[in-house]
Amino acid sequence: MTTVSTRQDTTALLDRFRDVRARTDRLVRDLTPEDQTPQSMTTASPVKWHRAHTTWFFEEFVLGADPGYRPRDPAFRYLFNSYYETVGERHPRAARGQVTRPGVAEVAAYRADVEQQVADRVCAGTLDESSLALVELGCHHEEQHQELLLTDFKHLLSGNVIQPAHVDRAADPDPTAEPAPLRWMHVPGGVTRVGDAGEGFAFDNERPRHRVWLEDVELAGRQVTNAEWTEFIADGAYEQPDLWLSDGWATLQSQGWRAPGYWRHDEDEGWTTFTLSGRRPVVAAEPVCHISFFEADAFARWAGYRLPTEHEWEAWAASGQEVRGGLLDPERCHPDLAREVTLGNVWEWTASAYLPYPGFVTAPGAVGEYNGKFMNDQHVLRGASAVTPPEHPRITYRNFFPADSRWVFAGLRLAR
Amino acid sequence: MTTVSTRQDTTALLDRFRDVRARTDRLVRDLTPEDQTPQSMTTASPVKWHRAHTTWFFEEFVLGADPGYRPRDPAFRYLFNSYYETVGERHPRAARGQVTRPGVAEVAAYRADVEQQVADRVCAGTLDESSLALVELGCHHEEQHQELLLTDFKHLLSGNVIQPAHVDRAADPDPTAEPAPLRWMHVPGGVTRVGDAGEGFAFDNERPRHRVWLEDVELAGRQVTNAEWTEFIADGAYEQPDLWLSDGWATLQSQGWRAPGYWRHDEDEGWTTFTLSGRRPVVAAEPVCHISFFEADAFARWAGYRLPTEHEWEAWAASGQEVRGGLLDPERCHPDLAREVTLGNVWEWTASAYLPYPGFVTAPGAVGEYNGKFMNDQHVLRGASAVTPPEHPRITYRNFFPADSRWVFAGLRLAR
Amino acid sequence: MTTVSTRQDTTALLDRFRDVRARTDRLVRDLTPEDQTPQSMTTASPVKWHRAHTTWFFEEFVLGADPGYRPRDPAFRYLFNSYYETVGERHPRAARGQVTRPGVAEVAAYRADVEQQVADRVCAGTLDESSLALVELGCHHEEQHQELLLTDFKHLLSGNVIQPAHVDRAADPDPTAEPAPLRWMHVPGGVTRVGDAGEGFAFDNERPRHRVWLEDVELAGRQVTNAEWTEFIADGAYEQPDLWLSDGWATLQSQGWRAPGYWRHDEDEGWTTFTLSGRRPVVAAEPVCHISFFEADAFARWAGYRLPTEHEWEAWAASGQEVRGGLLDPERCHPDLAREVTLGNVWEWTASAYLPYPGFVTAPGAVGEYNGKFMNDQHVLRGASAVTPPEHPRITYRNFFPADSRWVFAGLRLAR
Amino acid sequence: MTTVSTRQDTTALLDRFRDVRARTDRLVRDLTPEDQTPQSMTTASPVKWHRAHTTWFFEEFVLGADPGYRPRDPAFRYLFNSYYETVGERHPRAARGQVTRPGVAEVAAYRADVEQQVADRVCAGTLDESSLALVELGCHHEEQHQELLLTDFKHLLSGNVIQPAHVDRAADPDPTAEPAPLRWMHVPGGVTRVGDAGEGFAFDNERPRHRVWLEDVELAGRQVTNAEWTEFIADGAYEQPDLWLSDGWATLQSQGWRAPGYWRHDEDEGWTTFTLSGRRPVVAAEPVCHISFFEADAFARWAGYRLPTEHEWEAWAASGQEVRGGLLDPERCHPDLAREVTLGNVWEWTASAYLPYPGFVTAPGAVGEYNGKFMNDQHVLRGASAVTPPEHPRITYRNFFPADSRWVFAGLRLAR
Repeated sequence: MTTVSTRQDTTALLDRFRDVRARTDRLVRDLTPEDQTPQSMTTASPVKWHRAHTTWFFEEFVLGADPGYRPRDPAFRYLFNSYYETVGERHPRAARGQVTRPGVAEVAAYRADVEQQVADRVCAGTLDESSLALVELGCHHEEQHQELLLTDFKHLLSGNVIQPAHVDRAADPDPTAEPAPLRWMHVPGGVTRVGDAGEGFAFDNERPRHRVWLEDVELAGRQVTNAEWTEFIADGAYEQPDLWLSDGWATLQSQGWRAPGYWRHDEDEGWTTFTLSGRRPVVAAEPVCHISFFEADAFARWAGYRLPTEHEWEAWAASGQEVRGGLLDPERCHPDLAREVTLGNVWEWTASAYLPYPGFVTAPGAVGEYNGKFMNDQHVLRGASAVTPPEHPRITYRNFFPADSRWVFAGLRLAR
Repeated sequence: MTTVSTRQDTTALLDRFRDVRARTDRLVRDLTPEDQTPQSMTTASPVKWHRAHTTWFFEEFVLGADPGYRPRDPAFRYLFNSYYETVGERHPRAARGQVTRPGVAEVAAYRADVEQQVADRVCAGTLDESSLALVELGCHHEEQHQELLLTDFKHLLSGNVIQPAHVDRAADPDPTAEPAPLRWMHVPGGVTRVGDAGEGFAFDNERPRHRVWLEDVELAGRQVTNAEWTEFIADGAYEQPDLWLSDGWATLQSQGWRAPGYWRHDEDEGWTTFTLSGRRPVVAAEPVCHISFFEADAFARWAGYRLPTEHEWEAWAASGQEVRGGLLDPERCHPDLAREVTLGNVWEWTASAYLPYPGFVTAPGAVGEYNGKFMNDQHVLRGASAVTPPEHPRITYRNFFPADSRWVFAGLRLAR
Repeated sequence: MTTVSTRQDTTALLDRFRDVRARTDRLVRDLTPEDQTPQSMTTASPVKWHRAHTTWFFEEFVLGADPGYRPRDPAFRYLFNSYYETVGERHPRAARGQVTRPGVAEVAAYRADVEQQVADRVCAGTLDESSLALVELGCHHEEQHQELLLTDFKHLLSGNVIQPAHVDRAADPDPTAEPAPLRWMHVPGGVTRVGDAGEGFAFDNERPRHRVWLEDVELAGRQVTNAEWTEFIADGAYEQPDLWLSDGWATLQSQGWRAPGYWRHDEDEGWTTFTLSGRRPVVAAEPVCHISFFEADAFARWAGYRLPTEHEWEAWAASGQEVRGGLLDPERCHPDLAREVTLGNVWEWTASAYLPYPGFVTAPGAVGEYNGKFMNDQHVLRGASAVTPPEHPRITYRNFFPADSRWVFAGLRLAR
Repeated sequence: MTTVSTRQDTTALLDRFRDVRARTDRLVRDLTPEDQTPQSMTTASPVKWHRAHTTWFFEEFVLGADPGYRPRDPAFRYLFNSYYETVGERHPRAARGQVTRPGVAEVAAYRADVEQQVADRVCAGTLDESSLALVELGCHHEEQHQELLLTDFKHLLSGNVIQPAHVDRAADPDPTAEPAPLRWMHVPGGVTRVGDAGEGFAFDNERPRHRVWLEDVELAGRQVTNAEWTEFIADGAYEQPDLWLSDGWATLQSQGWRAPGYWRHDEDEGWTTFTLSGRRPVVAAEPVCHISFFEADAFARWAGYRLPTEHEWEAWAASGQEVRGGLLDPERCHPDLAREVTLGNVWEWTASAYLPYPGFVTAPGAVGEYNGKFMNDQHVLRGASAVTPPEHPRITYRNFFPADSRWVFAGLRLAR
């Protein structure tokens, strides 16, 4: 699944493990049991489930590698396995929100117990290199679920007529704030190497590093803003079929899309959007967020540009200095004003389908199901978002979602 | 909607109101917030919602009759209105399980607040007769929801792989216990009066009392038992289309029915069923429970008998002494052994469609939506069940559900 | 299934058989193979299928009673069995429109062959009384399908943007024509006998004749007209939930109902409707047609009246002289102007659910599936329509359809 | 949309136009009106519709370019437009099989009329270069529909219990025939040019020719055979989730896939498949056909190889001599025995998603909707099949279908 650095410093791994686990707890500190139980749709999961599933991952793949290990509760293997067919039967995904027991307290106890056992084994040095690599993988896995937990919880909360706030974000920026001006950045073409080649951690889908041919290209220095998106809306783009992919137009019509996800238009307030701090006015200088691939693609066409491929994106990101911004701050959970960042604010839809890199191989065993089996009819996003943990992103990172997904913190960057 | 006794004793009403409210609290005493939040299907509701909705009923129809009343929270009117179109827009029924806020504690506070205000007004004598009648209606309404709350919660709990227990019911009866022998009871025909004519409370759908013609009929003295149902199964009845109504056969096939709801067959344990005390062996001498109208109808055909009409049932019940048994005991929530009772153990599917009585009129205003608008494609059940509050049943009572419903505590009684 | 007159005159039966068969051929004379092949929805069937199925009925139940009979084609038994589980597996109902072979010519040959064989056996006197009764039943069965054939074909044709005409009906009546004035007809109550008791043919569901109790009632002398229905529309009835049954309101919203089936409103032309003579203006003095039970029920509520029960209807029809009008004329296929008829113009939705009469028994064997197994969640219609063959109706006749059906030629008569 | 050779010889174009049109007529010569009317599923169209739609294409884009042109029938524009949003509203795709009028004879007359007018204009030299290019495009378009017509008709016919034959194909090959042995063919990597650069016709999606980087690869000399596929089945591959993409496994389970499309296993006959010559035994030495992308992908994984990308495929096809085989023969419509062909027998699923080539631009106007708007969640197939017209294929040709499509004549070729 992953290569762990061979000279793994056990102490560093343990610190990392504890930090990651602690942040999950931090993120849910203010959530009631009621908040943590339901799911808003099949593709989103309950908060409680995210907490238990990330724990199950360590239990199944790290503790479970020990033939003498006796699972805390056999039912948990059924309830908290996400999609690992090799592990066995699973609770139906669409019914995750109907599991009332174990409750939040039991899940917390499950977390503490497994955490302690993993930590003990790491300290005691009884884990082999493969298990240590799985501890590291489990940390990255849990970070992914930290982002999903917030993404899913935002979706759940948004359906509530009360439109409640989850975090007490400081006041919104001055609505007259200006985004960074749009600057085009040249990326020279030619045979280019992409994919992870480092000694550090990367997911299997970022490997192997390989050559691709690129033509010269220019990428926008910053992401598309809400100000630009309101022009797109005002120009009637949601009513013009020729701007849209055929599937996109059908989805737009069946879903009644007229603006990004969570946006609403009122006579009095104009455009507002739902945030984890409650419903607020759309801020013009922020990057647009919660758009589908279909909308990103239509916007680029409308603007006279196009989306970059994932390889163009990676070549661009590798060509300059890495600038981070707009990553997970548990007190905010919302994009910063649009400026020139490489990684952060919103995930960026690319023109690329999510396919295996040449020579891609999955890990043996159940953990081989981690990424590879989803390489069908999904679209690659690059970068990171305002709910991505700061340790998590890389410029070789390949995120992926179906083309109609809007609950993800995703926007776009233009290319030409 | 209902006629309240004109010499309403205010003290008695107040006692009744407080008793009913207290029992709802008693029923959920041991339920966690997690237990109370989700719903298992569109036609079932969260426990928390039942608690809030029954409170909203008093707020809307009793407190709200006062033009000066200021609602506790305008969102509650949207969230906890069930189906009253006249009151306004409602939260979608299928999404009741996604409401995390207000939480359980807030709902409890809502209950206490409205309860106090209603009680104050009753004590102060400031409610007119119509409002007092609505307080009485609200008590009966809340009793209906006590039954639904347990019925829905059982359904939710049953989907959990852990098959947890909710009540610590005393040990099951001796599995070799015998049910009461089957005795046929003669009911003479002729012009017969049915429907409520009393001075006490009845729902609008039980009125007006009117004449019907009945032929002579015999009804079974007790309900059909699990022992009899296992014969039905063993005889291959679930595989013989000629025993079934056309819609019933289609439902059986699409749902894969092979036994009553909650039943399961294992090599080792034989037939077991899920109860609010967890999964337990099927007890032969208990009345069969959790069957659909389709199954009741097919059983009667298989047995060479038929279901009684609701009028035959009422004539039978009125012809002898009323014997109650198997009503709500919060420590048990399960049918008793089958014996000769008029009201209790399991609701009894009748051969009658749920239609208005001749001369039926709905109450003016929103409360007129209580019963009348559901008189389409539903089937009448008579009697009461092991989760019906003891004060609730009457022999003129008309319960109703669609023909494919199995989560209700329903069985059957034969006629010939 | 049915009682045939014991002194059956063979010649009369043969004449009847030939007449019925010839009318089916007459009805499809001008239809192309393309017209006869598709189906517009699962509950409607292709014209070609109706022609073959009515033939299969004679083959299966009359010819097939002879153990030596060798079916013309074993595939026909699979393709043209409608719903007889006892006969065996069937082609899926929703895919009847995908059967291209046998084609129309082969179906015609199948008809001729089976017809000749049945006629030969009737002439030769080799059929026993039970088989003769099935020949008679088959004639009534084929008449039902003559009505369905036209009803289904109208539905299919209506979906065509060209809105083609099938019959060359003479000019529409003077649009200023007046319907018969509305006269209320008194029907005295008491113990009343309903159901068929005659020596002639009746379906099993019309028997046994039995007693019911009726209160005094008045029925409208004529059916509700298009003029009255446009008032109902103009009064906003399709936007007022309190006029509708709960299921009706949900159906109205999901289907976007704003007027009867086939009606359309244009700025220029006002209300038009699709007829088998093409699209034409709605004629005010005609009875309203192509409404669902939900609409009939809502109209009666709006008008301050109600629908009659099927027993009230039958008592009314039996109380005076039987007046026929508006039955099948292959050159017209459309209701006459509203006047005082007992049987004809449009089927009349009643307030009654379709349930077995007390003492109802089905015939042994497959033919027992004819009517009984559909006695669930359907509504009784009485009378006859402009596409009912003239020999077909009786005042004891019980037609039935689900509450949301609109492609049937159905309207209503008021009661009070 | 397309570039037409600038020195277009009018006579050659006219000949080609007439040949293509005549072949469509030839293909449907033996089909009855019943055969030509229904559709078997939303993604398949009636034969009659294919005949009319290909005619409409010429009428809309060639004749319609003349402002003075008066359409033969305005309804045809609504009925026979496939998916051109810019042209206007369309008949719903799922209801194409319900159009009975115009019938087959009227469609034939429509074909003759438009054909004559186009031919007249070509002869008269009154068409500008753009219109001549659209005549050429229309010929290629009609060839695509010739393949679809047979593909769709096969699907329709296969649902018939009679399993009728459409063509009288000569006897099947000796079942003991051997396929060509499997030979691996080396393709050297490096910067490689792909896409159409010729002077002849190509679709817009084959352009522009551009550079890609390829690693060294080997492709199988022939396609995977039925013999190999039966091993795959026998090894339990349809029951092993780890061989499948996640979406593929879900589809397999919901659809009950256990073998390629049209295959059936009987105790007596072993594996048979439905062909346009009726149901016949599976011939071991033929290439496997009617498999989805999911199955092709799983097979390659099971075999220890992989699918080639579309660029690898094109490089391979361009590296040797082009060998054609197994193209459309109206008397056969079935793949030949597997041998070393470049183009023919079965379409070959590749590992590539269907995406625009770098620099891809759509044509202005409605014809720009031809290809580009479908570049989402589809998979590229290369080669040609036994129902592809012989003039049609090119090695730069990009066919595309969703991953779960099985009614297409598609198989696979392995790479390593």
